[in-house]
Amino acid sequence: MQTLHVDLADRSYPIYVGAGLISQGELFARHVAGKKVAIVTNETIAPLYLESVQRALAAYAQTAIVLPDGEAFKTWETLQLIFDGLLSARHDRRCTVIALGGGVIGDMAGFAAACYQRGVDFIQVPTTLLSQVDSSVGGKTGINHPLGKNMIGAFYQPNAVLIDTSTLTTLPPRELSAGLAEVIKYGLICDEGFLAWLEEHMDALRSLDQQALTYAIEQSCAAKARIVGADEREAGVRATLNLGHTFGHAIETHKGYGAWLHGEAVSAGTVMALEMSRRLGWISTEDRDRGIRLFQRAGLPVVPPEEMTPADFLQHMAVDKKVLDGQLRLVLLRRMGEAVVTADYPDETLHATLSANYRALVGQLGEQ
Amino acid sequence: MQTLHVDLADRSYPIYVGAGLISQGELFARHVAGKKVAIVTNETIAPLYLESVQRALAAYAQTAIVLPDGEAFKTWETLQLIFDGLLSARHDRRCTVIALGGGVIGDMAGFAAACYQRGVDFIQVPTTLLSQVDSSVGGKTGINHPLGKNMIGAFYQPNAVLIDTSTLTTLPPRELSAGLAEVIKYGLICDEGFLAWLEEHMDALRSLDQQALTYAIEQSCAAKARIVGADEREAGVRATLNLGHTFGHAIETHKGYGAWLHGEAVSAGTVMALEMSRRLGWISTEDRDRGIRLFQRAGLPVVPPEEMTPADFLQHMAVDKKVLDGQLRLVLLRRMGEAVVTADYPDETLHATLSANYRALVGQLGEQ
Repeated sequence: MQTLHVDLADRSYPIYVGAGLISQGELFARHVAGKKVAIVTNETIAPLYLESVQRALAAYAQTAIVLPDGEAFKTWETLQLIFDGLLSARHDRRCTVIALGGGVIGDMAGFAAACYQRGVDFIQVPTTLLSQVDSSVGGKTGINHPLGKNMIGAFYQPNAVLIDTSTLTTLPPRELSAGLAEVIKYGLICDEGFLAWLEEHMDALRSLDQQALTYAIEQSCAAKARIVGADEREAGVRATLNLGHTFGHAIETHKGYGAWLHGEAVSAGTVMALEMSRRLGWISTEDRDRGIRLFQRAGLPVVPPEEMTPADFLQHMAVDKKVLDGQLRLVLLRRMGEAVVTADYPDETLHATLSANYRALVGQLGEQ
Repeated sequence: MQTLHVDLADRSYPIYVGAGLISQGELFARHVAGKKVAIVTNETIAPLYLESVQRALAAYAQTAIVLPDGEAFKTWETLQLIFDGLLSARHDRRCTVIALGGGVIGDMAGFAAACYQRGVDFIQVPTTLLSQVDSSVGGKTGINHPLGKNMIGAFYQPNAVLIDTSTLTTLPPRELSAGLAEVIKYGLICDEGFLAWLEEHMDALRSLDQQALTYAIEQSCAAKARIVGADEREAGVRATLNLGHTFGHAIETHKGYGAWLHGEAVSAGTVMALEMSRRLGWISTEDRDRGIRLFQRAGLPVVPPEEMTPADFLQHMAVDKKVLDGQLRLVLLRRMGEAVVTADYPDETLHATLSANYRALVGQLGEQ
């Protein structure tokens, strides 16, 4: 087991990473102050892991709140089910909410913990690779509103995060790959040593080697903690976490949400960011191809949808949150392991990037 | 105009108190960072003061969100109307929410500001005496849930509080008196000098003398800020703010919410706390009668409902939040201007207090 301490704002909390952690009652006990816990999970995860977590928490009075699965249920109506469950079981301010599931469960259970009686204790147990490396750090919680995603929420830090790498054995391989896109991202934006490690251990990760997973998750969370700690308000360096996301969001929006997984769009979007960084003379063709190969080996798409024109991209990218005073800011690589956020590039470089023939470009690399 | 600085947790904010403040655009401008404001108010207050506030904020793009009036609407459904209004008008993270109304509006608009895009700026403009002296300090925001009052919410501090004493000219006299119950409370629990000032100026307050109101509100907010600042988590001294509330809640619950106004129940409840403090030998009969006279002069009831038996009181008080390990903790006066929270009293003194003939006791004082 690895333990990482996240130090943000007025509180610090540990992230434990290792195989089999959800069965370790002692780990939970360190962070449960009262006598009652409420486990919030969904219909997919409950049959797999709820019983293990309940056994680990046998010393406490328990309530299990099982929600429907999916982003479509990240709504007030579902949140209300959590409050109903907490109030019906007469949980008071000393209760601890435990989020057992992926990003949607973490966001909703975290927001419920932030609001219930104006704030109760909260432990995250993320069960997807994406939520383990992304939502564990940063304290963003919330729900969607019919007029916008993640519009209602709170910044609320957990008391602890338990990342049990063995829960990834039940994760669909496509979702494992999607999570790896964000893992690779951390290497590209801030840690070339980690990038090299990923190249050596990609096969181990995809075959669920627990030791390799533990290391990769711990490095990813540590990278995010460093970046968020340096820029909690997203004024500067935090935006580098969005490498590939501006191009990627355009792909997601164009294809309709859900057609491409978020990590898949980030993968193809990052290839475009690599190509643009190369055209600006910041990274070499070898660097670009090194990135592409790593995404390929993670089982991810590296070519944007062929029907998407530069005009399609520009249209979707114009509404991106990173547009400031009409200037489209992009996250690009100054060199491998160092990202920058910039609006200072020739328009023709962007257009050339959007017009590039990625299929041909990737074809030259040969199949892996 | 008086300015009081409240220094709580990680931020400090000013409370401005004076006549005509809602027309002073410059005061608002000090605390509006962006270009857009959303004014949240209700159907009772909007015809009286919305236009003045809108004129004062003429320099900003504005959205007015007018909610139905009353505690019955302090629900998620009404809160959703605020989010709908904010999102329809495309307010972003730089918007400022302005709460114009009493405690219900302040609680709901404050909670909306806490959650909208994970937190936006927020200015309180309380228009009832109760909200001016009670909700302006402490940062409690929230809504009711069908299974409990104030169960969903956040601690969220405003950027500023503008208390315009001239809004009290349109407040129903019964509600003014109810607000005065809380003002008197501050004198009783922590400031005998203020108590003496109230005795001298009660008539001026009830006839809406703006200078007297400004002073009384400023002293009340300062007292609450001192107490909350010393004990944000309500572990000790903050509980003294509940003087008269344990007996008062029993009255409210017994009569059904709304039959007695909160301040009216606090008044009669505080008379019982004075009587018990006298029976314990902590204050004199003269002290007790001094308190009773002041509540009477504020236009408040000083005799609990005659049909309520000691058993009625005990039943309702047993579920009070101040019960700790089965011991009923009460807020009593050690002397005039000094409250204590204690479970250390003979049961027979409590019973004698509940059985006392308050009508006879008050009758001896003669009519004022």
